[in-house]
Amino acid sequence: MKSLTKELWVDIPARRAIVSIHNEVERLVQDSGIRDGLVLVNAMHITASVFINDNESGLHHDYEVWLEKLAPEKPHSQYKHNGFEDNADGHMKRQIMGREVVVAITEGKLHLGPWEHIFYYEFDGKRRKRILIKIIGQ
Amino acid sequence: MKSLTKELWVDIPARRAIVSIHNEVERLVQDSGIRDGLVLVNAMHITASVFINDNESGLHHDYEVWLEKLAPEKPHSQYKHNGFEDNADGHMKRQIMGREVVVAITEGKLHLGPWEHIFYYEFDGKRRKRILIKIIGQ
Amino acid sequence: MKSLTKELWVDIPARRAIVSIHNEVERLVQDSGIRDGLVLVNAMHITASVFINDNESGLHHDYEVWLEKLAPEKPHSQYKHNGFEDNADGHMKRQIMGREVVVAITEGKLHLGPWEHIFYYEFDGKRRKRILIKIIGQ
Repeated sequence: MKSLTKELWVDIPARRAIVSIHNEVERLVQDSGIRDGLVLVNAMHITASVFINDNESGLHHDYEVWLEKLAPEKPHSQYKHNGFEDNADGHMKRQIMGREVVVAITEGKLHLGPWEHIFYYEFDGKRRKRILIKIIGQ
Repeated sequence: MKSLTKELWVDIPARRAIVSIHNEVERLVQDSGIRDGLVLVNAMHITASVFINDNESGLHHDYEVWLEKLAPEKPHSQYKHNGFEDNADGHMKRQIMGREVVVAITEGKLHLGPWEHIFYYEFDGKRRKRILIKIIGQ
Repeated sequence: MKSLTKELWVDIPARRAIVSIHNEVERLVQDSGIRDGLVLVNAMHITASVFINDNESGLHHDYEVWLEKLAPEKPHSQYKHNGFEDNADGHMKRQIMGREVVVAITEGKLHLGPWEHIFYYEFDGKRRKRILIKIIGQ
């Protein structure tokens, strides 16, 4: 069994952002030399998600509106967690969008459907953030 | 390390459908000869989910009603993504139900609780769709 | 490839409960002797979740309120599944919070961000419940 482990840093200037990490994951799979296996990609922060969906800006706007409806940020006082923070909504949004994805590697490449694209979604940014990529296989 | 990779095609005549893929996954685990490992099962389409829950038609009806309340299909104009498509709601429903499941294999069998059953859930069908099964282990 | 498989039993006296299983998972990773790999942790019950988020009681209270808003338990009659059960809401809450987590193991330890903590979340308790931990790697 071979493996590759990488912590990827991204700069998130805004409170919320959807960032493509697809090319980085693809490159790491290539670097690993693994032909057959699995890659785990997960947010290392608990107000953030890694998800796979369409690379289309209209949809990303729709996610913003929809998540704000399901788990509104304000008023901050509606959440007990916000006694000492203001990001309770981010902990909820992250549960809807998910912490991680696991993707198959076949013949040395990410084995994905035609429109599957890997994104990081931050709900409490304004600082640098970390994503973990772990590849195992042979 | 051994592995088995399979793209499973299913025909989805309706816009939405919950389809059991449990027996197919079970059979592939058996075919793989892997006694100890993991199986990844994921939708290859971004308006679809793979999930594990009860094989009970009342509950499946409840999911339909519930998801429609959390992410309504209509009016189509409420979503920017629908400028050129009509399936934005499917991209949202899929985030709630999840893209993939990872299941343990122990002693050559799916290692599941007594009521766990594997399903594919399509939110934008009316055509053939693909599910990926990737098994690794020994 | 090495592996370790463990079914962990927990006692859930209330209908709903968030239970830390972090230390147990950490100990099993250590016991496995695996330096590099993946650990799958999943609920074996279909009205329950395994999730990773903050170990903070205010947030756990917020999850309770929020999930009850998105998928209310009562009236029981709103769900067809409840013709013979009363836990349809639990099958929905579990889809939002997720069935499983997959965590990387690096240098013999759980490879997590600083605030990531592993929990079991039961939505239909009042009895003993099972969680599966499957570790593979080398």
